[in-house]
Amino acid sequence: MERPRHQGMAKNTYMRWRLPLVCLLWEVAMIVLFGVFVRFSAEADAHWEEEKREMNLTSDIENDFYFRYPSFQDVHVMIFVGFGFLMTFLKRYGFGAVGFNFLLAAFGIQWALLMQGWFHSFKDGKILIGVENLINADFCVGSVCIAFGAILGKTSPIQLLVMTLFQVTLFSVNEYILLNLLHVKDAGGSMTIHTFGAYFGLTVTRVLYRPNLEQSKDKQGSVYHSDLFAMIGTLYLWMYWPSFNSAISDHGDAQHRSAINTYCSLAACVLTTMAFSSMLQKKGKLDMVHIQNATLAGGVAVGTSAEMMLTPYGSLIVGSISGIVSTVGYVYFTPFLESRLHIQDTCGIHNLHAMPGLIGGIVGAITAAAATEDVYGKEGFIKAFDFTGVYQTRTPSIQGGFQAAGIVVSLLMALVGGAIVGGILKLPIWGDAAVENCFEDGVYWEVPEDEESDVYHMHNPDKPASP
Amino acid sequence: MERPRHQGMAKNTYMRWRLPLVCLLWEVAMIVLFGVFVRFSAEADAHWEEEKREMNLTSDIENDFYFRYPSFQDVHVMIFVGFGFLMTFLKRYGFGAVGFNFLLAAFGIQWALLMQGWFHSFKDGKILIGVENLINADFCVGSVCIAFGAILGKTSPIQLLVMTLFQVTLFSVNEYILLNLLHVKDAGGSMTIHTFGAYFGLTVTRVLYRPNLEQSKDKQGSVYHSDLFAMIGTLYLWMYWPSFNSAISDHGDAQHRSAINTYCSLAACVLTTMAFSSMLQKKGKLDMVHIQNATLAGGVAVGTSAEMMLTPYGSLIVGSISGIVSTVGYVYFTPFLESRLHIQDTCGIHNLHAMPGLIGGIVGAITAAAATEDVYGKEGFIKAFDFTGVYQTRTPSIQGGFQAAGIVVSLLMALVGGAIVGGILKLPIWGDAAVENCFEDGVYWEVPEDEESDVYHMHNPDKPASP
Amino acid sequence: MERPRHQGMAKNTYMRWRLPLVCLLWEVAMIVLFGVFVRFSAEADAHWEEEKREMNLTSDIENDFYFRYPSFQDVHVMIFVGFGFLMTFLKRYGFGAVGFNFLLAAFGIQWALLMQGWFHSFKDGKILIGVENLINADFCVGSVCIAFGAILGKTSPIQLLVMTLFQVTLFSVNEYILLNLLHVKDAGGSMTIHTFGAYFGLTVTRVLYRPNLEQSKDKQGSVYHSDLFAMIGTLYLWMYWPSFNSAISDHGDAQHRSAINTYCSLAACVLTTMAFSSMLQKKGKLDMVHIQNATLAGGVAVGTSAEMMLTPYGSLIVGSISGIVSTVGYVYFTPFLESRLHIQDTCGIHNLHAMPGLIGGIVGAITAAAATEDVYGKEGFIKAFDFTGVYQTRTPSIQGGFQAAGIVVSLLMALVGGAIVGGILKLPIWGDAAVENCFEDGVYWEVPEDEESDVYHMHNPDKPASP
Repeated sequence: MERPRHQGMAKNTYMRWRLPLVCLLWEVAMIVLFGVFVRFSAEADAHWEEEKREMNLTSDIENDFYFRYPSFQDVHVMIFVGFGFLMTFLKRYGFGAVGFNFLLAAFGIQWALLMQGWFHSFKDGKILIGVENLINADFCVGSVCIAFGAILGKTSPIQLLVMTLFQVTLFSVNEYILLNLLHVKDAGGSMTIHTFGAYFGLTVTRVLYRPNLEQSKDKQGSVYHSDLFAMIGTLYLWMYWPSFNSAISDHGDAQHRSAINTYCSLAACVLTTMAFSSMLQKKGKLDMVHIQNATLAGGVAVGTSAEMMLTPYGSLIVGSISGIVSTVGYVYFTPFLESRLHIQDTCGIHNLHAMPGLIGGIVGAITAAAATEDVYGKEGFIKAFDFTGVYQTRTPSIQGGFQAAGIVVSLLMALVGGAIVGGILKLPIWGDAAVENCFEDGVYWEVPEDEESDVYHMHNPDKPASP
Repeated sequence: MERPRHQGMAKNTYMRWRLPLVCLLWEVAMIVLFGVFVRFSAEADAHWEEEKREMNLTSDIENDFYFRYPSFQDVHVMIFVGFGFLMTFLKRYGFGAVGFNFLLAAFGIQWALLMQGWFHSFKDGKILIGVENLINADFCVGSVCIAFGAILGKTSPIQLLVMTLFQVTLFSVNEYILLNLLHVKDAGGSMTIHTFGAYFGLTVTRVLYRPNLEQSKDKQGSVYHSDLFAMIGTLYLWMYWPSFNSAISDHGDAQHRSAINTYCSLAACVLTTMAFSSMLQKKGKLDMVHIQNATLAGGVAVGTSAEMMLTPYGSLIVGSISGIVSTVGYVYFTPFLESRLHIQDTCGIHNLHAMPGLIGGIVGAITAAAATEDVYGKEGFIKAFDFTGVYQTRTPSIQGGFQAAGIVVSLLMALVGGAIVGGILKLPIWGDAAVENCFEDGVYWEVPEDEESDVYHMHNPDKPASP
Repeated sequence: MERPRHQGMAKNTYMRWRLPLVCLLWEVAMIVLFGVFVRFSAEADAHWEEEKREMNLTSDIENDFYFRYPSFQDVHVMIFVGFGFLMTFLKRYGFGAVGFNFLLAAFGIQWALLMQGWFHSFKDGKILIGVENLINADFCVGSVCIAFGAILGKTSPIQLLVMTLFQVTLFSVNEYILLNLLHVKDAGGSMTIHTFGAYFGLTVTRVLYRPNLEQSKDKQGSVYHSDLFAMIGTLYLWMYWPSFNSAISDHGDAQHRSAINTYCSLAACVLTTMAFSSMLQKKGKLDMVHIQNATLAGGVAVGTSAEMMLTPYGSLIVGSISGIVSTVGYVYFTPFLESRLHIQDTCGIHNLHAMPGLIGGIVGAITAAAATEDVYGKEGFIKAFDFTGVYQTRTPSIQGGFQAAGIVVSLLMALVGGAIVGGILKLPIWGDAAVENCFEDGVYWEVPEDEESDVYHMHNPDKPASP
């Protein structure tokens, strides 16, 4: 620990050898594994001219790249700018928020390409990757970014990398169970990304419980400009969420429909969030924490059903409800979780991802169970749920049951996995900071001098107080 | 009002019941109306497989989604990040700028989907929505964001919602008159969005005139970092404006051409803005207000004509002129409007949207009147101006006349509508702040403590002055 | 010069007539030249309906607009927000960073459309422009933005415009030599953009060497929030780099492959940058300068080879190496260049663009030389390297040799061009600031009062120091 203070048990946060070692070993492992396994998919390979002829494609525009690349870029922005800046609300942890998010996501996407590749794109001993794999890798680390929100400010970069390694692995297994074994639909990841990621992160932060965290309470707040930086993250997540939920849907109407449903749900969510933010406050003033987070719950909550015939008004209903649940969560549940269950959830991911993720899973199950050939059309019905091959005989209500099972599996995987990984992260070798240095960039980052003095200045009792 | 000061007439800015009530009632109304009226368009509906066959489409890529979705996302960014952050230049109104813009836009797009839907996408009792409707809804609230710029910092969130409700309605009526009755072309909305939105907002702010606004003059300025936040808004508007002007143009060459014309116009506009910003200042220094705003006038001014054969050099000319007009406006017109006409225009929308919008309408009328079959090609000519059906016999000069009529109609609708809506907003029930609390987030938002004290500190006379 | 201080040789930084004159004359010249030369390409012209029939295109989606426009917008963001905000790290030069970058890029793209047009899109006396020309113009000013990084904070806006004028010209000549005469592949511009731009800028800054620059050393650093603004630039560059490297590649597999290779390279680069940032620091803390810059080296270093069959693991290797080289450069080379070679490189472009650009050129040469029909397929091989017409007989190894020659030509053009242009910029007529006013917005910009006093306050010795 740098400059031990107060009753601090001196902790060793010195990263000089440990962090480089982890990063470099990891990157070498990635190079070797990519060398052995990863190749271009047919549509990204120079042989595509021949492939095109075989597939009777008349135009280059039929390449999946043109169906999905714009959405991929939007998703990419959500992961790196969206999640990264959303977490800069803390007054003294902006470098850690953006920087560690950057580190863990860059680390995770490589591993995700492999893990998801083995499960989904493995052919003749090779993983064949194209733009859809890039989107899926971003999705996978999205779940890590969510979990990061719970432990933000309380962990070392090495802990984050270790968590990423395990979480990506478990994510891929869970995803495989849901999509392949249960044949569940979850294009926007209400279950695989949000429910799994959030409960995983909440379990980890529970295991890592720090009893005296109120010692750094003064650093857990925001300052005026840090709240504006966080709004950059919020808005990019909000604006691009229609791309997120539609990025890997089937070509054509499914992508189109996902985007519309998500757009509607998010719009409704903003209104109910603002309403409850004002209503739940004695002074009736709006709280930036709610605006920054609960407005996004509408995107989470239609993650499973957006590509289904949820319909625009259905989306408005789901979005409205999730905004309310999420805002209420920030006001009542987060303090409860911390004081009673010892779950210290820095960003309130329970409100933004866990509960809306569950809602999303349930709405998905109901929407699937309620599907009819009348609403979808004969062909559309089969296409929407992939009721082909061995699944030819599945009925909507059975599909709804499997969807519900997907929620349970995701929850279990998250809780068990989070407990184990939390235990590993508790080992005293990863260099996490002492409690009084939490939420403080200075522990792991070079911080400009002037500003640092400025912060101390802020707490100077001699400073003229606000009138 | 929080802490009444000076000669303040105590105003009730307490939002706790009023704001939630408006938001929730509204959202319920939306759900009901969407339930009754809104369904997916053929291209977003699960029946599309059958539709595709009927329309003889061989590929999913023919879905309108792939023609317009990337542009939609750019427009979406312009509305929420572009307008939102552009208005964060005020030192103490960043939350209000970004947050209220977020609220009113999310509120407005739902109503716009309905209003525009009834006028343009109504079929067999249902409004059928697809990606083009999403773009148009964003466009419509764009005009509200513009009007918001005039009254920024001086109104309560409820006033903004009420204004949005009425302005979206009037916008849709005006748009219907122009596009359907006058058969006017206005893909980038110089008339429907900018002229209408700006004069509407200017009329509203005139009606809401506050005589002693100089009491909050110290809060009407920027600080160093707030000017940088505003540049985020500026740049996203500037960069994505080619998408704005091309988003709803015809597929193919029209979209392509719109983007090129807008790109050229905006580039020229930056140079003339910089030139006049320096020239109109005794010290010759550049003024961030001009760079943040007048550089965008080039996008407004080709809004009508960008999809026509304006040509790249025509775009440079229009862009150059509008940059000059806009910068001159900031230096000379804005003070004049305030002192003589009692129009208090916080963001200077008269310079960025009103005058360039008029220029855009006029340039559009001239470009249409000057169109020839030689320049457009026989088919291109008919396609560009939709001279089919009952409009088969329209000549370019008649079209030019109708375009000019469109400007006049937009102006009249804005002035009359703005006067009425301004009158409604003047009612003493909406919770607007007293004059000395304008441009101050603390009235409607929870503001972090530290920073607040910091601002007071800034005005502390004991502080060492700048040498 | 404003308020001469210390031993300052009074310099005339008054811009009032000079800057407007340059901007306006320039814009008039552009209008005239565009009027004479620039027209729409067939795909953006209203005649396209007829064109389409002649070319046997069945759908509007075949318009190049739909292949490239999303990538164009990403590149556009990189140039204006990416480069602009990356340079806002300086505590007192945010307006200059974003604003001058905006000015020079808007100025440069117009000239680039002409220069590149004459070389590449000239037909029957007219330059025909489409979306690919817009991308190339952005690319071209990208090289100017790079050079701007070396002289950031030390030059007047007029110097920047003069440099832009010459650099765009030289860029276009160099690009013509490489692409047309040497028939070199360089879709992501490792050679044409990065190597050329960086060595050009480094030579210019060498010629403009300021001996007493340590006088403004206190302003060469960052503050906490300026580092966060810079991260906006970093992340947008990082996220959209796959679009940069694939924007002008051949339709289909080449664009697809470029994006994947770049994605992989950048991910690896983040890990090695973090590793070395921590390792090269006694305290083992991460340095924002490295994270902001060296993480991007992976995009530069695959600029030439991304569209080739570099393969994902090849990309990981290249990205890993370039992250290491770049970070080591920041720690060791930059101080060396300044103290020994008198190269004052404000942003460290030597580490981010020069060295990785060379790596990119070399990797491209090797990858080309190693190409086989087996790896590319017979048709793919010919298509990837355009081995048609007079180049029908080129072998991979010969192509590799030409690629290597391209590096040398780019270097020579940059060094000779930079020396000449640097000499021109040294003339005492352009209004650059005295050494003690470098890195200070107040010289050319109106700066908000409050903040200015705040900065002086920061340096006030009476202020309580950091404990």
